[in-house]
Amino acid sequence: MRRDGRGPGELREVRIVRDFLKYPGGSALIEMGDTRVICSATVVDEAPPFLKGTGRGWLTGEYAMLPAATAVRSPRESLRGRVGGRTHEIQRLIGRSLRAVTDLGGFGERTIHIDCDVIQADGGTRTAAITGAFVALVDLLRREGRGGDVFPVADYVSAVSVGVVDGEILLDLDYAEDSRAEVDMNVVMTGGGRFVEVQGTAERSPFAAPVLQAMLAAAAEGIGRLTGLQREILGDLR
Amino acid sequence: MRRDGRGPGELREVRIVRDFLKYPGGSALIEMGDTRVICSATVVDEAPPFLKGTGRGWLTGEYAMLPAATAVRSPRESLRGRVGGRTHEIQRLIGRSLRAVTDLGGFGERTIHIDCDVIQADGGTRTAAITGAFVALVDLLRREGRGGDVFPVADYVSAVSVGVVDGEILLDLDYAEDSRAEVDMNVVMTGGGRFVEVQGTAERSPFAAPVLQAMLAAAAEGIGRLTGLQREILGDLR
Amino acid sequence: MRRDGRGPGELREVRIVRDFLKYPGGSALIEMGDTRVICSATVVDEAPPFLKGTGRGWLTGEYAMLPAATAVRSPRESLRGRVGGRTHEIQRLIGRSLRAVTDLGGFGERTIHIDCDVIQADGGTRTAAITGAFVALVDLLRREGRGGDVFPVADYVSAVSVGVVDGEILLDLDYAEDSRAEVDMNVVMTGGGRFVEVQGTAERSPFAAPVLQAMLAAAAEGIGRLTGLQREILGDLR
Amino acid sequence: MRRDGRGPGELREVRIVRDFLKYPGGSALIEMGDTRVICSATVVDEAPPFLKGTGRGWLTGEYAMLPAATAVRSPRESLRGRVGGRTHEIQRLIGRSLRAVTDLGGFGERTIHIDCDVIQADGGTRTAAITGAFVALVDLLRREGRGGDVFPVADYVSAVSVGVVDGEILLDLDYAEDSRAEVDMNVVMTGGGRFVEVQGTAERSPFAAPVLQAMLAAAAEGIGRLTGLQREILGDLR
Amino acid sequence: MRRDGRGPGELREVRIVRDFLKYPGGSALIEMGDTRVICSATVVDEAPPFLKGTGRGWLTGEYAMLPAATAVRSPRESLRGRVGGRTHEIQRLIGRSLRAVTDLGGFGERTIHIDCDVIQADGGTRTAAITGAFVALVDLLRREGRGGDVFPVADYVSAVSVGVVDGEILLDLDYAEDSRAEVDMNVVMTGGGRFVEVQGTAERSPFAAPVLQAMLAAAAEGIGRLTGLQREILGDLR
Amino acid sequence: MRRDGRGPGELREVRIVRDFLKYPGGSALIEMGDTRVICSATVVDEAPPFLKGTGRGWLTGEYAMLPAATAVRSPRESLRGRVGGRTHEIQRLIGRSLRAVTDLGGFGERTIHIDCDVIQADGGTRTAAITGAFVALVDLLRREGRGGDVFPVADYVSAVSVGVVDGEILLDLDYAEDSRAEVDMNVVMTGGGRFVEVQGTAERSPFAAPVLQAMLAAAAEGIGRLTGLQREILGDLR
Repeated sequence: MRRDGRGPGELREVRIVRDFLKYPGGSALIEMGDTRVICSATVVDEAPPFLKGTGRGWLTGEYAMLPAATAVRSPRESLRGRVGGRTHEIQRLIGRSLRAVTDLGGFGERTIHIDCDVIQADGGTRTAAITGAFVALVDLLRREGRGGDVFPVADYVSAVSVGVVDGEILLDLDYAEDSRAEVDMNVVMTGGGRFVEVQGTAERSPFAAPVLQAMLAAAAEGIGRLTGLQREILGDLR
Repeated sequence: MRRDGRGPGELREVRIVRDFLKYPGGSALIEMGDTRVICSATVVDEAPPFLKGTGRGWLTGEYAMLPAATAVRSPRESLRGRVGGRTHEIQRLIGRSLRAVTDLGGFGERTIHIDCDVIQADGGTRTAAITGAFVALVDLLRREGRGGDVFPVADYVSAVSVGVVDGEILLDLDYAEDSRAEVDMNVVMTGGGRFVEVQGTAERSPFAAPVLQAMLAAAAEGIGRLTGLQREILGDLR
Repeated sequence: MRRDGRGPGELREVRIVRDFLKYPGGSALIEMGDTRVICSATVVDEAPPFLKGTGRGWLTGEYAMLPAATAVRSPRESLRGRVGGRTHEIQRLIGRSLRAVTDLGGFGERTIHIDCDVIQADGGTRTAAITGAFVALVDLLRREGRGGDVFPVADYVSAVSVGVVDGEILLDLDYAEDSRAEVDMNVVMTGGGRFVEVQGTAERSPFAAPVLQAMLAAAAEGIGRLTGLQREILGDLR
Repeated sequence: MRRDGRGPGELREVRIVRDFLKYPGGSALIEMGDTRVICSATVVDEAPPFLKGTGRGWLTGEYAMLPAATAVRSPRESLRGRVGGRTHEIQRLIGRSLRAVTDLGGFGERTIHIDCDVIQADGGTRTAAITGAFVALVDLLRREGRGGDVFPVADYVSAVSVGVVDGEILLDLDYAEDSRAEVDMNVVMTGGGRFVEVQGTAERSPFAAPVLQAMLAAAAEGIGRLTGLQREILGDLR
Repeated sequence: MRRDGRGPGELREVRIVRDFLKYPGGSALIEMGDTRVICSATVVDEAPPFLKGTGRGWLTGEYAMLPAATAVRSPRESLRGRVGGRTHEIQRLIGRSLRAVTDLGGFGERTIHIDCDVIQADGGTRTAAITGAFVALVDLLRREGRGGDVFPVADYVSAVSVGVVDGEILLDLDYAEDSRAEVDMNVVMTGGGRFVEVQGTAERSPFAAPVLQAMLAAAAEGIGRLTGLQREILGDLR
Repeated sequence: MRRDGRGPGELREVRIVRDFLKYPGGSALIEMGDTRVICSATVVDEAPPFLKGTGRGWLTGEYAMLPAATAVRSPRESLRGRVGGRTHEIQRLIGRSLRAVTDLGGFGERTIHIDCDVIQADGGTRTAAITGAFVALVDLLRREGRGGDVFPVADYVSAVSVGVVDGEILLDLDYAEDSRAEVDMNVVMTGGGRFVEVQGTAERSPFAAPVLQAMLAAAAEGIGRLTGLQREILGDLR
């Protein structure tokens, strides 16, 4: 049994507060255990240069942590004047994950900004960010309302971490588990069970193929439950 | 009457959630109407160079807004690689305001970081930040517990804005009022009614001395009510 | 009596050299005691984005100190790659102070740059900068000459510091006084005696309302004399 | 058949020039088709703060492209003043991949810098960098020679890309293939066939589990051949 | 005799590999002894603002060293976020040297980027860069082909260093010589023997006029041989 | 005859105001015609890392222009967050020029900062900076007073520009001449007539050897007169 009483394949308690903020078109507070992330989706009337003339829109993700979100205070990236490598990596992951299910072909040359700000970090902030941001995105797109068009989001997307800790495969690692994990994997999947991203890393020693398979299976289980929660909140995608 | 039904000398509804975060020594979520700020206080084991060898501690403030905190999304300062002038100004104000009532002479060469992160901005974010940060600071200092010593905070500190809108003096401006204000003033005062900071600015046209006096009086009223709330939450300062 | 023989309500010797520089439209060297600031006003043919299409002009202030202007050499902000918080604060103050008496409605979408470069710093550099910059601004606007139009500057503007040192209220603090001041206030006023900015800070301990009133009165006296000097140099505003 | 005549599961021609540079302890030029990367390994006498007092060493990777390495010239990151997200991501991948097989426990508090500079980029630069850097690393560690100790590198490490292009699984994508890929995966594995990193991304549309399995199998084949080449060059790891 | 057996007025072995890279319009690897520089020339469809409306093109140089190019690893300027003074100086020198013989009057408002990346640094990197870049530039301009026009390059340009070491005048210093040089001079000359740049620096003690004359003579000799090599590779300039 | 009535080999009127500033150990305002530069010399108690343990001091130069120093306002480098290439180049030149005559072997591990701030720029700012900075340096070193030691400055140093304008060799170019110059050269020489720096650049077309010789002769003449002025102000170097 895990420190918080969960079984190996169990998610932490998940809670999503829809429309957590007043101004953005879509927003959500997602909590997975003690991890809390504010996600929002806003439209800005400009698109990256490579879309000039295509009429297509873009979606981009940003991610940050409050300095006091972690056990040891982390300095503000705005004061250091640079965004660190970890932040960059997560921002790119968030953007790719949501773009994989979204068709912004008819959106006009505009950009959807997905902002994920971690209020409290107890492991799994990037995966929580993706799961929560999906809710904000769908709400935004519904409010932007595009008449008779097909709804531009093809499927649910959520994400979960899975790892090997003391030789055992655990789903949805908290910070203490993550720090001791031998293998760490983040999986982003659709409601239909297809992969969007698979990122597995041997933190301590390389892992064999069967371990990889078992982790993928555990992740798929978790994704199924997160999809269920998203569907409960959002209903069908239209 | 004001758009939200308040009288000219009335504060918006104020709500302070103590210990809003899990990790920092002290924290609070403060809401004044739709303005919401997460404040936290953390100790770090290093002090600025000019305190080397004095045994004294330091207190410093940082302030930021989530991109989606405002009606129009504001770009992240970490991505621009620079902290803007407005942010700098507010950070310095927060630091000075709390230092004015705090004696860190026996604190050791450590730094208290006050982080104020605006989740939602509807005017008066810097004054809300000061009022909320005071709660986080007192909680931190109590937990750092310094035995038989005198408690290092001498008095309550809170802050409020006051302005002239359409010729009328209004307390605690929301964003819509602030945008139209002819004069804008931020006042930081102690529980005992002494001034810590007075910053008044003619946004449109210079103002006469009696206007200044009337604004100061209105601010003092508001401060009295904020002190009351702080006292309710924190009890006596010891 | 003060170290330099002045009474408490007396300004240091003030000297303004008009047209100190060859190239800018307006310029002045202002000396208040040992504080020396070069102020200049230049027009650039572009305005900030928020004025696009309004036909209005803008005025912005910049402030810097030579490294050798202070008793201890201060590193160059250009080499640190960032403008510090104090500089930002002063730049914003200079801009607001001059904009408060200037109507750039008919100026076209152009920007007036006010540059204040401190050659020698012995306290009160920001207030000297405002007083000197006003002279540069008026000269620039006269040379830009706008025929039968109303002259765009409505009133004189100058600034002075006032503080409490060893319990006594002193006008126009030099650096040694400023370092020991319990309260420090900068006041920007018009020739007509209206307030443009009031910024008072308790450096050591909060101050009571009567102290604030006495400081404001002392400042108003000083402003009167600075206005007199500006009028002597510039004549009537037209 | 692919544009360059390869079969779907075939690597491009690989060529590794050992000791390509004069100064670093280890270096290699690796060419995979038209992709050319200079890899080097150097020791610097300082380690990151978190290793202070442990006697352990660290290994870190850096990655850059010459501006003229790509079909369209890419601006220099040194002039933009920032390292982009893609670079950050690759640097972290290189570091993790080599650390996974290296035990720097007895290395002393020093840092091995792995520099991977892409001279010419025709797809697969990050995987070529890892494969080539491994050669530079082993040469460096041999020259640093640690007497009777166990050789600190436990196994060979190499990397390869695999993707889905027009529905077909292709190994070792060149740039043209990579641009059209529906799924893109980078796999880092040991000589013993264990995973170090698996990073799969749905570039266009999410992919099903059997596709993932087939890609992993193709990658393992490629890794086998790269390990063979490394072994040929380096001999046994000791 | 010098450490490597050369006479005082002898160049190191020079080798130029034309078209070293696949993508840029012109490129060359130049080796002078152990100094190795990759030079490339690429056209980009934009010109600096001051050429707007002139129809003229621009040429600009960039210079960098791989971290492992030097005996002691040098940190990457992209990570430091700034280009150092030495780099700036060399970049400007490269640009000026090539512009001095090139007439981009009919080139259109485009920019030729000359990239010089030092793979290995054993003294004389900036002069090698100029000599090699000239080859890349000519190849680029020939491929950009401008029909019946006069070829836009008027003369060959190359560069060489010369210095005083232990009182003796030496041509083409390697790093060991350069470190001990009392005087260090870089000379850029045309095939016709005219000066483009002369930069002489007293590293230790000022030098007399006859020393200057003797250095200029030695440099001219070296330039003659480099011109010969360029002519051999490129043929006549047309 | 030149626009301002000078002969080709004549300097502009030179004026040096010694001890122009109150705080630094040495300072001077130098004016050459309309070019005006404030130079100062200050000691700071730290030296660059490469002098650790040597007991030697260092000297470094910094250079900047006020935004309003030029006919067209130039943006502040502190706001751009970077020092440009031209500034870097000049800073390095100032430092090298003064170090060439100064022996800081017995100075202790301290740094002399030479700050050259251009108040007004009408050509020749870098050469004026060197000539003026020399005065500030000598005054600083005298005040730092090192008992019976040999005075650490071996000879006077000054600098002057020379160029070819409309085919004629002119000494000490003003801005208008400099803009039209075909060849531009800066020469730094000692009082004893030895070269410290020679930097000649073909701005338009390469120049022949006799032109170089004639420019060097003209420069030597100018240096002679500047040395005379420095000697008049400073007396013998001791």
